[in-house]
Order: sequence, then C-alpha cells, then structure tokens
Amino acid sequence: VTRCAYVNGRYVPHADAAVHIEDRGYQFADGVYEVIALRRGRLLDEEAHMARLDRSLAELEIAPAMSHAALGLVMRELVRRNRLGDGNLYLQMTRGVAPRDHGFPAGVETSLVLTARRAKPQPQALVEQGVAVVTMPDIRWGRCDIKSIALLPNVLGKQAARAAGAYEAWLVDRDGHVTEGTSSNAWIVTAAGRLVTRKTGNDILAGVTRRSLIALLGEQGLALEERPFTVAEAKAAREALLTSTTSAVLAVTRIDGAKVGGGRPGKLFGALRRIYLDYADGAGASG
Amino acid sequence: VTRCAYVNGRYVPHADAAVHIEDRGYQFADGVYEVIALRRGRLLDEEAHMARLDRSLAELEIAPAMSHAALGLVMRELVRRNRLGDGNLYLQMTRGVAPRDHGFPAGVETSLVLTARRAKPQPQALVEQGVAVVTMPDIRWGRCDIKSIALLPNVLGKQAARAAGAYEAWLVDRDGHVTEGTSSNAWIVTAAGRLVTRKTGNDILAGVTRRSLIALLGEQGLALEERPFTVAEAKAAREALLTSTTSAVLAVTRIDGAKVGGGRPGKLFGALRRIYLDYADGAGASG
Repeated sequence: VTRCAYVNGRYVPHADAAVHIEDRGYQFADGVYEVIALRRGRLLDEEAHMARLDRSLAELEIAPAMSHAALGLVMRELVRRNRLGDGNLYLQMTRGVAPRDHGFPAGVETSLVLTARRAKPQPQALVEQGVAVVTMPDIRWGRCDIKSIALLPNVLGKQAARAAGAYEAWLVDRDGHVTEGTSSNAWIVTAAGRLVTRKTGNDILAGVTRRSLIALLGEQGLALEERPFTVAEAKAAREALLTSTTSAVLAVTRIDGAKVGGGRPGKLFGALRRIYLDYADGAGASG
Repeated sequence: VTRCAYVNGRYVPHADAAVHIEDRGYQFADGVYEVIALRRGRLLDEEAHMARLDRSLAELEIAPAMSHAALGLVMRELVRRNRLGDGNLYLQMTRGVAPRDHGFPAGVETSLVLTARRAKPQPQALVEQGVAVVTMPDIRWGRCDIKSIALLPNVLGKQAARAAGAYEAWLVDRDGHVTEGTSSNAWIVTAAGRLVTRKTGNDILAGVTRRSLIALLGEQGLALEERPFTVAEAKAAREALLTSTTSAVLAVTRIDGAKVGGGRPGKLFGALRRIYLDYADGAGASG
C-alpha cells in the first residue's frame, strides 16, 4: 500500500503531497487542525473533534472547507486507502492561498489537508512507570483555546522537555498555576482522592480526551474539581496524570525531577486508563 | 516574464511553487522570515536583515539553509529573473520536512523559500493624510523578538484594524503601554519635540526600518527616547509615526478615532520620511 494523503480535493501519494508556498498556513500560521485517534479503523470521538474544529474555524472566521458529512466521507476513505487499524488522522484547514498580506484575503478557498498514519504502539514502560514532566513559564498567546497551527511555543516547550529527559512540559502561568502541557492536559489527584484539572478558558485547549474522561468520571460517580493547581500542589499530590489523543491517559510520576506519589503510577490512574481505553475501543469510536 | 520563486534549491514558476504538507512551517509555524525592500533592483539594509535572520534562526536552533554569500546570490538571481526594480523580497526558512511530532526532528534539512514581487506604489493619500490606527490588547506570545511565521495574532490584529477602517493596530501590553503594530513599529513625538519609541526586548520585533531611522537620527543630531509610551500619551502627542519595510515611514494621524497633531502629518514626520527615503535610495541599498 502506498501511503496516501488528501490535499484540496485529491488523494495523492503522501510523498508528493504539497501545498502552495503562499498558503496562509505556511506564511502566517493562519489555520487550525485536529488529530483524531483511530481504533481498529474507527474514528474516536469524531463528533467532539468536529465540534471543536467548527469552533476554532468560527473564532478565526475561516469558512469550513466542507460539511461534516463530506469530511466524514473523506476521513473514512483515507483510512480505507491507507488500510489503517489503530492510528491517527491529522486534519488541517487554513484560510487558503493568497498573495502575502496580513489581513484576511477576499475570495479564497479554505485549504484542506489530511494525513493518516499507523500508531506506534505506546511503549509499555510509559504506562507502567509513568512519565516525567518539567515545568516552565507559559509564554503562549492569549487564545490557546483555538486549536491553531501557530504551535511554535509548544514546539519549543516540548523540545526543552525532551532535552531535560522528560516526556512533556507543563506550562505555568504568571500566578504559578499549571495551564496544560504542550500537547496534553494536566491533572492531579489530591490527598483526599479528588481529581483536579484546570477549567477550560482562553488559556488552555479544551482537550477531547479530557472531555471524554470527564464524562466517564461522571458515569462512575467520581468527583472532579475544575480549578487551577500550582506546581507545588502537583508535586505534593497523591497522583498526577496527563491526557491527550495520542497519549490517552498516562501517569506523571516525576515533576521537575521530584517524585510524585512515590514515583509509581497510582491506583486512580490505573482505573481511569482502563475506563478510558474500554470507552475508546467501544462506544467512543464511530465506524 | 513568468514570475518565479525559489524553493529548496530550484527556481520555479511562482504558480507552481509548493512545499510538502509535512514541512514544519505548515504544521507548527516552526520557521522564520524576512521581508527585504528592493529599491531600483537593490536590496535595502541587506546586512541588517541577514543579521536578524541569523538571530531568529539561532533562537530556534534552526540551521541556516545556506551561507549569507550564497543567499545573497539567490536573492539577486531571483530579482534578476523577475526583472524587479522597486519591490519586496520575501525569504522564509523552516526547520524542514519531518513526520509530525512537536519536538525537533533529527537529520532534517532547513527549508528555504523565496518570493519576489513588484511593490504597489504607496498611495499618496497615506503619505499626505497619514493613517489611522486602533489599539487593542497585545495577546501575542512572549518572544516577539523572534521573527517567526507564527503570525496568527498579527493577522487577527491587522484584520480587526481593517474592519475598523484603520491601517494598522497598535498592540497594548498589560501596563497600558503600546508595544508595536501588527507589522510595524510605533513612535510618537512629545510636546517637547522628542521622538519616542519602545526599547527592543522580548516584547517587540527589532524592526530594520526602526534601526535605520535611529541611525539616521543620530547623524542628524536628533534626540531619541527609547522607552514605552501609553495610549493616552500617544493620543496627546504632537505627532505619531509608524515604520516598517513595506510602509517605510508614515504619519499616524488618528488613534482610536481621536486626531493626533490636529489630524495632519507633522513637520518631524516630513523630515524623517525625506531623510529615510534618501537613505533608502542611496547608501542603504546594496546591488
């Protein structure tokens, strides 16, 4: 099978997939994206991703490239052509191609690009031992609720984490509270056993995995506090977690080198990961 | 003449100029750029642009795609092929093409794209009547000193300015001070006749036109204060100005609808524009 991508109306070999150099995604980061997990060929949380995509587009006044129904067909066709089981779909819409000028151009068509790839299996060590995070100031812009491709600060944060031997960076606002990771949401479990994660707002992305996990918590009757927490509170927490489409749920067992929860993934993590993966393999995915 | 662009080693018709969809410039805004003015086919302030480019690349740990000498040859060849007199050169380097993953990829080659275009003549009305600006909160990230392509906040600011019938938006920090425009630096002239512009730092781009004008001020023995100013101070100023590569020097005669300096371009503006354009047409440009 030749890996293929979808670019502005055509299925093309991934290696040849190209966009014009004056696509505003390339010159202005003027676009948005979604990453959707595939579980045995089915799209996980498709509706939530489509709803978030619509919201991002609306905030930037970018016209959707096509309807949800049409996009659903394209996504499924791309999965089929790439013969994917477990993997990820990447979907990007930008404001289109126009002579370079900051303001919105008139009469352009929204660009649409999709890629698909097989998931590398998540290393068992990450699940069993948990991951390390490092903290750093959140220097991103004021609209992190928009899932835009202006990801340079996230790139720099992730790279700094890796250079420090960590899996992720947790970004910290001016008040000392964790906002989120560079590509994941951040959670802790208090001494009283309550899950805490920051409330959505302009300062974080409304993660789809975060959202699904919150819904599952409700079904299980587990308590959640949506509020900011400090780095000190996280270091002293019983457990810490992160969630994202590509990581699902992982335990955070080190923060800036300090062990969290004795340095081992905790019980609530184990339960939440199980609940989440059951959901992902069942009701959460749409064929 | 078919308009042509330079893309990763080749001169190609502009209409066909394309980059791979997994170029990190397209998915992560992981790149930097420069816009260089052409005056009668010569590059204005080439050395200053190259120095700033080097600094942006170094801050992001992106390897230069080629030496200054080689880049100089490419720029001149592109000008020649496009038979340009007055115009603009656009130059962009990104971290390269790699499977999508936030951290820096190993073993990639820096992407290099250049475009060139004829300058639309600056409308005389802008020069004679000055321009309007509107102010809005500066919600950009913390490293505006890096000339990155993560320009979405600038795009939104410029569009909001145009929607308000203004030429530019002046961005205002948490303390009420103007940082800069979305694609220009901001200046005022105090009642005492002193020019004021914000000091360079992480919060603004070190504009090349700003830099050249400051050097020319020194030659003329004109006083400059490099310090922040408030919106109120700007509205009450004797004159206000903006500078950029594509606008050169323009008078700002309205701020949020209020007239500045009686709503007419001032004397210092006239002198500075003349001094700057003399420089641009002479010593500033390199063949």
